[in-house]
Amino acid sequence: MLGLDPNPARLWPRALCQFEGAGTPAFERIGGAEAPPAARAAFAVVLHCTLLIDAVGEQCVAVKPQVACFERLGAPGWAALGEVIVRAHEHGLLVIADGKRGDIDVTASAYAQAFFGTTDTPYGQVEGLGADALTANPLLGVDSLTPLIGEARSHGGGLFVLVRTSNPGAADVQDESLAGEGMVSDRLARIVAELGEPGIGASGLSDVGAVVGATAPDRLAALRSAMPAAIFLLPGIGAQGGRVGDLAAAFAPGPAGGLVSASRSIAHAHDQRGGDPAGAARDQAARLRELAWELGS
Amino acid sequence: MLGLDPNPARLWPRALCQFEGAGTPAFERIGGAEAPPAARAAFAVVLHCTLLIDAVGEQCVAVKPQVACFERLGAPGWAALGEVIVRAHEHGLLVIADGKRGDIDVTASAYAQAFFGTTDTPYGQVEGLGADALTANPLLGVDSLTPLIGEARSHGGGLFVLVRTSNPGAADVQDESLAGEGMVSDRLARIVAELGEPGIGASGLSDVGAVVGATAPDRLAALRSAMPAAIFLLPGIGAQGGRVGDLAAAFAPGPAGGLVSASRSIAHAHDQRGGDPAGAARDQAARLRELAWELGS
Repeated sequence: MLGLDPNPARLWPRALCQFEGAGTPAFERIGGAEAPPAARAAFAVVLHCTLLIDAVGEQCVAVKPQVACFERLGAPGWAALGEVIVRAHEHGLLVIADGKRGDIDVTASAYAQAFFGTTDTPYGQVEGLGADALTANPLLGVDSLTPLIGEARSHGGGLFVLVRTSNPGAADVQDESLAGEGMVSDRLARIVAELGEPGIGASGLSDVGAVVGATAPDRLAALRSAMPAAIFLLPGIGAQGGRVGDLAAAFAPGPAGGLVSASRSIAHAHDQRGGDPAGAARDQAARLRELAWELGS
Repeated sequence: MLGLDPNPARLWPRALCQFEGAGTPAFERIGGAEAPPAARAAFAVVLHCTLLIDAVGEQCVAVKPQVACFERLGAPGWAALGEVIVRAHEHGLLVIADGKRGDIDVTASAYAQAFFGTTDTPYGQVEGLGADALTANPLLGVDSLTPLIGEARSHGGGLFVLVRTSNPGAADVQDESLAGEGMVSDRLARIVAELGEPGIGASGLSDVGAVVGATAPDRLAALRSAMPAAIFLLPGIGAQGGRVGDLAAAFAPGPAGGLVSASRSIAHAHDQRGGDPAGAARDQAARLRELAWELGS
């Protein structure tokens, strides 16, 4: 799975060139070279993500846009996120919006509208982003997750709930031992398994998945046994130090049981490997894909 | 503190009337009556929030816009959030963006840019929302919070970290007993106290506050003792069942030690009390303010 974490200061040169050259109707629509920095940067971000999807889309089943990277460009950034989702869908890719949302029920419903559904207004319905899945933070408990799952499910989509994240700080809370049994992350895994039960399809996999960092391979077996039907979203490969070869336990239910996510190691592969960014990204994505398939088969 | 959770289907009639009547330059700028539903709804949301701020701003020290309610209107909604923040600042109010963000360090930095800072692009700097504070989710641990605190602090702002939320589901994870001592929420409180230590000002209060639901008054004393310098953001009054009279422990450091947040009970006060929305909202806000000050003094 291709992570899309566009940093406006590190876009592929071609995304900037096309932009500077421009004169296209789309470029004129945003106001051309006179447009404010946010609009111009958001335009270049869409081009960058499009080039990246063109280059490695065939190696992937899904893209995972990092919502924060779009939010920092304001309203044009949010519009760019919508456009990138459309491009990914045109390539037949699933879109997992990495927003890590989590809030009380009424607010979770609002997030569900923003990412999966629609919002009624006196002026007509407003379409949400049309994502296929969203990452969600379970700290607020079951009632904060059910509105997201309900809306996702009604659109044939799903949720990936944080269980054990890929960062060193994950240890601060998620690895705390509970008085009963296991760690906080084990409790989160039980919540995921319960909420996912009604969403298990013919494949044996559920529409409620789990985010389990590739940087904590020693937790994988226990978490897999607590969540036998969950698709594991496995971030942390590459830039964060996780290795695909350590993830076998995640793929216990078969090749579709795990989604290996890589962002910077693909988008910036040319920094290490040289060559043009698209070619380097394609090679790196192909390499990761092969490794993941070997594990799952 | 005034929560701004605008529901496009329940805006004050005057926000809709002004809008329909319009013909103002601002209305024409969005495309007038021919504009798409999202733009028209976002325009009405700004008017609604402006009317609400005009009505009760003097009773408050801060507004707390719920980011989800703006996101569901897409790019125009994000622009509306920016406009509402400007209006609140014009009234001398602090702005606490209720986004409950939480992510790994590089992404937390992107959120910090979106809410507090700026983003460098090849076309110039893009300004963030200019919020004074943000609510943050600590499930990912210390390294997910430090970029947010760093950026907020450099702008004289702060962070409110979820410790014990106001919803029933808070019990599912936050109330779990740890093997060592206390509950998960006590662990979160220790993190808040540690991170807030360097940010304690002359007032004795820190720039790292805590979200502690008004619906769990029995937890207040312990959490206050773990976080003596934290400002408590206390949601859950009114619609969620919390009562101001139960919150004395939160105000131990003085009247500024707690921020009582109310949204729907103010914006929709006229549903129960009758009269015009602005007057009913003003009365309800004044009543809450008096109760809170009595507790703090």
